[in-house]
Amino acid sequence: MVTQEQAVIRAVTSIDVARLAGVSQSAVSRAFSPGSSISDQTKQKVLAAAESLGYRPNRIPAIMLSGRSCMVGVVIGGLENPFYATALERLATALRENGLQVLLMHVDDALTLDNALDQLVSYRIDAIVTSLAIGSKTVAQALSRLRIPVVCFNSSLVGPWISTINSDNHGAGFAAAHLIMEKGRVRPVWLAGPERNAASLARGEGFLQGLQQTGASHIELTRLQGDDTYDSGYEAMLSLKRQGIRPDSLFASNDMMACGAMDALREEMDLRCPDDVIMLGYDNIPQAAWRSYDLTSFDQCTGKMVARALELLEKAFQAKDSSHSHTHIIDAKLIERGSTRLPL
Amino acid sequence: MVTQEQAVIRAVTSIDVARLAGVSQSAVSRAFSPGSSISDQTKQKVLAAAESLGYRPNRIPAIMLSGRSCMVGVVIGGLENPFYATALERLATALRENGLQVLLMHVDDALTLDNALDQLVSYRIDAIVTSLAIGSKTVAQALSRLRIPVVCFNSSLVGPWISTINSDNHGAGFAAAHLIMEKGRVRPVWLAGPERNAASLARGEGFLQGLQQTGASHIELTRLQGDDTYDSGYEAMLSLKRQGIRPDSLFASNDMMACGAMDALREEMDLRCPDDVIMLGYDNIPQAAWRSYDLTSFDQCTGKMVARALELLEKAFQAKDSSHSHTHIIDAKLIERGSTRLPL
Repeated sequence: MVTQEQAVIRAVTSIDVARLAGVSQSAVSRAFSPGSSISDQTKQKVLAAAESLGYRPNRIPAIMLSGRSCMVGVVIGGLENPFYATALERLATALRENGLQVLLMHVDDALTLDNALDQLVSYRIDAIVTSLAIGSKTVAQALSRLRIPVVCFNSSLVGPWISTINSDNHGAGFAAAHLIMEKGRVRPVWLAGPERNAASLARGEGFLQGLQQTGASHIELTRLQGDDTYDSGYEAMLSLKRQGIRPDSLFASNDMMACGAMDALREEMDLRCPDDVIMLGYDNIPQAAWRSYDLTSFDQCTGKMVARALELLEKAFQAKDSSHSHTHIIDAKLIERGSTRLPL
Repeated sequence: MVTQEQAVIRAVTSIDVARLAGVSQSAVSRAFSPGSSISDQTKQKVLAAAESLGYRPNRIPAIMLSGRSCMVGVVIGGLENPFYATALERLATALRENGLQVLLMHVDDALTLDNALDQLVSYRIDAIVTSLAIGSKTVAQALSRLRIPVVCFNSSLVGPWISTINSDNHGAGFAAAHLIMEKGRVRPVWLAGPERNAASLARGEGFLQGLQQTGASHIELTRLQGDDTYDSGYEAMLSLKRQGIRPDSLFASNDMMACGAMDALREEMDLRCPDDVIMLGYDNIPQAAWRSYDLTSFDQCTGKMVARALELLEKAFQAKDSSHSHTHIIDAKLIERGSTRLPL
């Protein structure tokens, strides 16, 4: 509910400000648009008049006329993973620097996404950016139907209007296998993420291809699955212990599981990294650099991924028809730390 | 830029949908408002008609008429701290459950806040919720001038329209001191956060009062300061080492610094928790429960803090005059883990 006081103050328009400042209405508009061409003197006059009248710019009429809100719907889940939290931070900063606002939608899973989309779209958002690892055809269709540009990170979604920016998950998995083989390890573990996570699937395929390509016949691969959480990495090692398997190397689909696995190896099996088990993760979360883990990891270079997303959006906004799909692959960067650095 | 195709599709109105579905225009509106009273049969008719016409609800005209957007500006910084990331997740979920959307503004510091506020307010947000630990008078004045409800977490901001929800920082600091004294430790360290952080100040004051109240005269307190990051906790212990100080207990203003301190004590000074040093942190971030740290910490009960924020907003939206300030204190919950659990 709007209070009377608010209503009165909100009724102050840019015309009132222009009159008091002795400038044109468009000068008032420019004074409140970052990067607009306006002299300092005029801008100061406008701001002083606006201040004394209690005026704040109002974008709503412009949205109504243009159908463009300069808001981007950002759909995320899993902020408890520091990787998504820092990626969101970078994305929000980049969007703001490009004059776009973030209408944030946190969803627990794809099930709640459809209802969420209706709400987002009712605000006339210009685009959607999402890092949800959802791959269903239904979700892709729901997104395509919006007829606004959609940019997905690490997703297998395909359809009109949907573009995808992926880390080179396959290539990184391949590189992880080669690193493990180079160090002479023969009992590797592949610790996968959730079954329908496209990024995890690609990392696993790359890893297996890498192992096969070395031609080594004596490799004993163990495949385990977690759900991208620390606890699931810990649990996975407990299941190894129960099976009497003693690994000498491990590639985890993300750092959270790798940290859990490393703690379990030490606490439950008295195995140390890197002496007993060399280990690689994915995402290069801040905790990978913490001394208790010192974990080798693949950095997704989210800065580059975000920059590419902004380019895609910019192009889409300018295109006559922006329904074409694009797929971009960004190289992952191997950050070598103690967990793969063998003592000489 | 709106493409022609988009423009055509967006021109479909609720009147078109009502006509095709053979229902009233208000029935269309109710079909798209979660929780509205509408029969399943009518709702299905509306959704089918909307689907075939490519109609999506449009809130912009309603925002223009009412001045209320049902968007809440959420101003945050420091998402690299898992505490803020999970708090944001809870807040976003709670707001959505109450029919409110999150217009997210990530700011690095108070300096960028003022410009950010102009942008937020131009979208006619209904309120602001912020966890920025900013205490300047200028910021408080800028927020009060907006004349919309502002809810701050762990802040010392005061002024009309501004309400504050704080963890019981002082009480928790007091309890930390008593726990350390009970365990017979006499060389405690207080590791503070940034100088102007109101929460850190209150935690430190509570801790000092707690130490004084025990009446022990042989306590050798060391005060150190970090910037709430892991690295600063690590660095703080290095400075202790250089001074030749060997602590037997530590209370850190947040868990990130505690984790850094614990790693440094082990790596650089060969001191273990809890045998050599008992340690407490604040925030109960997920990493506090990771086996490498097993850190005793104060949980801020963000679920309760968020619920209180929603109550404050609800009241403010219904009030004739919502410029009154409120301050609420939420008890912190001590989560005891291995870092304070001495071997028998």
